[in-house]
Amino acid sequence: MEKISEGKTKEVFLLDNDHVLLRFKDYVTAGDGAKADIIDGKGVLNAQTSALLFRLLEREGIETHYVGMKDERTMIAKRLNMIPVEVVLRNYATGSIVKRLPIKEGEIFDPPIVEFFLKDDARHDPLLNYHHMRYLKLMNEEEARYIEGIVQRVNAVLTKVVERLNLVLYDFKLEFGRLGNKLLVGDEITLDAMRVREPQTQRILDKDLYRRGYPLEHVKSAYEEFLGRLRNVV
Amino acid sequence: MEKISEGKTKEVFLLDNDHVLLRFKDYVTAGDGAKADIIDGKGVLNAQTSALLFRLLEREGIETHYVGMKDERTMIAKRLNMIPVEVVLRNYATGSIVKRLPIKEGEIFDPPIVEFFLKDDARHDPLLNYHHMRYLKLMNEEEARYIEGIVQRVNAVLTKVVERLNLVLYDFKLEFGRLGNKLLVGDEITLDAMRVREPQTQRILDKDLYRRGYPLEHVKSAYEEFLGRLRNVV
Ligand SMILES: Nc1ncnc2c1ncn2[C@@H]1O[C@H](COP(=O)(O)OP(=O)(O)OP(=O)(O)O)[C@@H](O)[C@H]1O
Ligand SMILES: Nc1ncnc2c1ncn2[C@@H]1O[C@H](COP(=O)(O)OP(=O)(O)OP(=O)(O)O)[C@@H](O)[C@H]1O
Ligand SMILES: [Mg+2]
Ligand SMILES: [Mg+2]
Repeated sequence: MEKISEGKTKEVFLLDNDHVLLRFKDYVTAGDGAKADIIDGKGVLNAQTSALLFRLLEREGIETHYVGMKDERTMIAKRLNMIPVEVVLRNYATGSIVKRLPIKEGEIFDPPIVEFFLKDDARHDPLLNYHHMRYLKLMNEEEARYIEGIVQRVNAVLTKVVERLNLVLYDFKLEFGRLGNKLLVGDEITLDAMRVREPQTQRILDKDLYRRGYPLEHVKSAYEEFLGRLRNVV
Repeated sequence: MEKISEGKTKEVFLLDNDHVLLRFKDYVTAGDGAKADIIDGKGVLNAQTSALLFRLLEREGIETHYVGMKDERTMIAKRLNMIPVEVVLRNYATGSIVKRLPIKEGEIFDPPIVEFFLKDDARHDPLLNYHHMRYLKLMNEEEARYIEGIVQRVNAVLTKVVERLNLVLYDFKLEFGRLGNKLLVGDEITLDAMRVREPQTQRILDKDLYRRGYPLEHVKSAYEEFLGRLRNVV
């Protein structure tokens, strides 16, 4: 099968003209690729987490690229023309926003803040506004607003399910792609792209553990625990 | 008279409850204040340039804070509640945008690109989107859109006058303030906040000369030449 692209955490194979296989690798990376490690089994955990969450979104009427699973680490997805933009929704302040702006860790965003970033590691994923996205032919303003609406609906679904795991959804990142005249949620929904914390203890269960230098086994067991809790509720 | 604030290039005095005096200093600075020098007479040149351009905008029906001149370097202005945001309009790519995004020097933006930046030297004036501005209580989305419209009208006026000087307007920065329920153009319109170049030779006539390390007399004579040409046409 032809490999049509490979990123830091997934390989993409052409299954047929309309479908791809997304094979989740065991890599974990941070700092635009500056730091990278292998965690045995992480690919399986992320593929399974993604599959559960995509199925949940579909059940709630949000269209995604998800079709099914080929094996435990390989997702069958609609082949999309991906837009190289990360769409971030923030319910609580943490990560890059507290470095960039006069906003402190843990501040509550209600309504949430939505941000678009260009996927460009060399430029450290710069923030985009509607004008930039139009000029760079990424999406027009109408599409950007449509995507903001979808991201808010995804937030409602994810916030609710994460709450049922006795966790809080701080923020998450989605990537979108085109299929005909439709814009679908693509890529992955995993702890690599989402921040969840325990409300009382502030315990972290996501890739921030890796960013902050926790042992790889610690990172892995948080991913396992999250998937375990998720399986119990969906 | 009470000095109510002082920035890198202007002092602000309270004239009466509704008016301020803006006294333009001879300082020139770059790199969020990292570099600073004195150019004798620059304050007068900038005050005069601002006065001419504010009068031009008023004549075209765009409301500004401009009232008149107290002396050659001191402007009488309506006292505004300033919004600490720089609104940048770009017709041609140069400056920070070619470093931040995959856009090359000299690319044409048609329609122009508008950007909002937080005035925060310590954070290097970060880019803002509508969500950030709402959350930081700078302006709501409706106000941001209104301001984008005003900036485009200012662009039409400035582009035309700069063209009559046989120059090209690359970009400019405005600051806005509130007066009752109105949003007015405040601050200054000078070569410190505007990039103009000669179309054939690419000769620079604005603060980029200083940023690029040209001698101070060279910077001053460009400011003088621009004001001289401006006086001939308005
Ligand atoms: N449904 C899809 N159709 C086609 N390509 C897809 C689909 N979903 C995701 N992709 C693409 O899969 C590629 C590989 O993903 P991966 O996350 O490994 O790479 P990356 O995002 O480029 O790098 P990183 O996430 O490490 O910054 C990405 O370029 C992504 O756009
Ligand atoms: N009409 C007005 N009413 C009240 N304040 C004003 C008005 N117009 C401008 N100002 C304020 O005058 C102050 C001084 O201007 P100056 O440009 O020197 O300072 P700055 O913008 O803080 O620093 P810099 O431009 O060097 O980054 C600014 O804070 C600006 O907001
Ligand atoms: Mg990715
Ligand atoms: Mg200023």
